[in-house]
Amino acid sequence: MASSWVPDVSPESPFSLANIPFGIISTRDDPAPRAAVAIGSQVLDLKVLSSYPTFAGVFPALEKHESIFSEPTLNAFAALGRATHRDVRKTIQNLLSADTSHPEVLRDNAELRGRALLSQRSVKMHLPMNIGDYTDFYAGYHHAHAVGVMFRGPQNALQSNYTHLPVGYHGRSSSIVVSGTPISRPNGQILLDTAAEPKQPITGPSRHLDIELELGCFLAKPNEMGSPIKVTEAEEHIFGYVLLNDWSARDIQTWEYVPLGPFNGKNFASTISPWVVLADALERFRTKGIENKTPLQGYLKESSEYAVFDIDLEVDIETPEGDTTTICTTSSKHLLWSFPQMIAHHSLGGCHMRTGDLLGSGTISGTGPRERGSLLEMSEGGKKDVMLYGMDVRRFLKDGDRITMRGVCGKLGERVGFGECAGRVQGAVQL
Amino acid sequence: MASSWVPDVSPESPFSLANIPFGIISTRDDPAPRAAVAIGSQVLDLKVLSSYPTFAGVFPALEKHESIFSEPTLNAFAALGRATHRDVRKTIQNLLSADTSHPEVLRDNAELRGRALLSQRSVKMHLPMNIGDYTDFYAGYHHAHAVGVMFRGPQNALQSNYTHLPVGYHGRSSSIVVSGTPISRPNGQILLDTAAEPKQPITGPSRHLDIELELGCFLAKPNEMGSPIKVTEAEEHIFGYVLLNDWSARDIQTWEYVPLGPFNGKNFASTISPWVVLADALERFRTKGIENKTPLQGYLKESSEYAVFDIDLEVDIETPEGDTTTICTTSSKHLLWSFPQMIAHHSLGGCHMRTGDLLGSGTISGTGPRERGSLLEMSEGGKKDVMLYGMDVRRFLKDGDRITMRGVCGKLGERVGFGECAGRVQGAVQL
Ligand SMILES: [Ca+2]
Ligand SMILES: [Ca+2]
Ligand SMILES: [Mg+2]
Ligand SMILES: [Mg+2]
Ligand code: NI
Repeated sequence: MASSWVPDVSPESPFSLANIPFGIISTRDDPAPRAAVAIGSQVLDLKVLSSYPTFAGVFPALEKHESIFSEPTLNAFAALGRATHRDVRKTIQNLLSADTSHPEVLRDNAELRGRALLSQRSVKMHLPMNIGDYTDFYAGYHHAHAVGVMFRGPQNALQSNYTHLPVGYHGRSSSIVVSGTPISRPNGQILLDTAAEPKQPITGPSRHLDIELELGCFLAKPNEMGSPIKVTEAEEHIFGYVLLNDWSARDIQTWEYVPLGPFNGKNFASTISPWVVLADALERFRTKGIENKTPLQGYLKESSEYAVFDIDLEVDIETPEGDTTTICTTSSKHLLWSFPQMIAHHSLGGCHMRTGDLLGSGTISGTGPRERGSLLEMSEGGKKDVMLYGMDVRRFLKDGDRITMRGVCGKLGERVGFGECAGRVQGAVQL
Repeated sequence: MASSWVPDVSPESPFSLANIPFGIISTRDDPAPRAAVAIGSQVLDLKVLSSYPTFAGVFPALEKHESIFSEPTLNAFAALGRATHRDVRKTIQNLLSADTSHPEVLRDNAELRGRALLSQRSVKMHLPMNIGDYTDFYAGYHHAHAVGVMFRGPQNALQSNYTHLPVGYHGRSSSIVVSGTPISRPNGQILLDTAAEPKQPITGPSRHLDIELELGCFLAKPNEMGSPIKVTEAEEHIFGYVLLNDWSARDIQTWEYVPLGPFNGKNFASTISPWVVLADALERFRTKGIENKTPLQGYLKESSEYAVFDIDLEVDIETPEGDTTTICTTSSKHLLWSFPQMIAHHSLGGCHMRTGDLLGSGTISGTGPRERGSLLEMSEGGKKDVMLYGMDVRRFLKDGDRITMRGVCGKLGERVGFGECAGRVQGAVQL
């Protein structure tokens, strides 16, 4: 990969020339949300770039869509499909390369460059997509197994459907917020004494507020209602990926979730990282997922075993005192099901999938003790202290705690990463 | 209630002057979806009405919103709030009354009347709202109890949380379709032999396709994320009501739903009636719901016991041979939880509720044998034949069956009803 003429693209940056993730920004000078890509510590304002006189000549794939980057979400761009995303990303890589074949557009065009290249610190990030529906899967095998052992013992840790289909539930699209949005601790019904009969809940702030480290996948191409998406064609329906923190109130969830699944324990907020890493940018990092020994139904059989991504993930907690501890280091490869399998299953009955839909992988945990993607696992069901910097401890989150998730892959100078998926917990509102 | 000058408003019509439900129509002459109200066998095109020179004088509440009825959904109108809906409905009732105080606008204005009043048969109905999120509750006590007895026996029919909180799950907003849309039988994973070990599913068309008779509630006013809606203020957040058929594939659902709830068994389609009956139009039909002997948490305590509506509901099945049988006759009053309670619970943890969100009541069944809102109940878990016209029988739906739900309340000449919530089952697509 060539180097970039853009100043201040450090080798450690997750936003190398090999990445070019898309997001939605606004600035003080132009408060209208619009598209941009990240490059090093800068962003390239694509709305400003679109004002270049021969923009359609530089981006032939966008000839009929010259104002697509002035829209407040990436949905219209995502809907153009993988081939267009690929073309546009390549052209932007070219424009930002030291040896660009189009130096006149940006590299040697001080006027446009001055308006189009902005410091990341000076832009506000928005939700990148208008999310029609959000579905959260449960494909993190080690997480599902560990939580299953806690609740049902090692013999019945996984339900019998778990290895036959990607288990998931419909989430709440209104709950998705962009990194940095404060998270209010939810109030809810909680059963303090789970053994007492009759069961008597109280109403109050969740005492077991948790995180879930997940990969999120945004859809590009829709299907028609009634028409399943084949697993072998599902890649064409993927726009790109984000990190996802599926904040979870374990005590609310435990009391509410039978028989219809998680509800208020999940719908108060889920945070995503602001930059959508295009599917093409992650192609080089494909690897095998967790082996599934169960014979698969035909609609779930993939043509390649290299169906998941090996992205280094980590989770930091910053306490109200300002001390930071990395509490999890793992990889996004620890999935039993790939996103194409999730998409094929989701649409098997004809479910209408739309541009901008968000799919969560489910909590990702590895096998080691420092590879657990939720506090529920780290604290072994709330029974053990998780040690933090300075002998501070947690079992679940305290008010004022800030959680930051990061994900990156690739060598120095060619890194492909997500930027932060962060949020700080605020005290519950008074009922 | 006065009578209307509009021709052909029969006393049996669910669209009397006492109703004035809102919907989204298009016509051959003007294919752009836009707002209308139903009156008798006609509809009043509100976009055409908006072209009346002194429209803002006739509708002072819409002074700054003169093009609101030209929009393709009712969301912007819904967002204006209950007081505006009330004003606008009253003004339309006045305009359509035989003794209108504004005869010059429509009654005596042949030109505008000719363009604005259209036969219902000549208009195409669309989804009335842009639905951000759809949540399906489970507040039909007799349904929940009957299904619970089937699966867990009479001692454990209801989970211990059932009388403490309105149990619900997040549905899929993309699955909502307007009455008349064909319903493709879903394919899915099905466990034919539930006793065999190890469990081995097959993939194929659902054999247990069912209906669920529900009332749907559209939200008007949003809340801010993090701010619960008080049960005593929830009425101000309600726009109006529709009938909802939550088509359900029981065999798919049974295999998939542990531990995270219904998924592909529900997300292929849910049908709603096209006209939104405003909350004000149903005020006169308030009644007591099912008594809940469990002491309620404070946030669920309502100021009045008259918290549900007594709407006569019925379900017809038309076979492919064209024979019709009414298989259910009940009332929407058979709910343990009111919509204000559902809203208060849904938002307790701060969940963001938006204009256009749809809440389903859960399947409504009464206590009698002809009052069951699903085939699962009518056939006692698929074990008994449901007798239809001409000695035909069903346990679940056949391809070609057409289901029609209707709901109406009030006296002849003052009826308030929903119109049909209908859909015909098509054969499953070949995988
Ligand atoms: Ca999750
Ligand atoms: Ca239902
Ligand atoms: Mg969440
Ligand atoms: Mg449904
Ligand atoms: Ni007048």
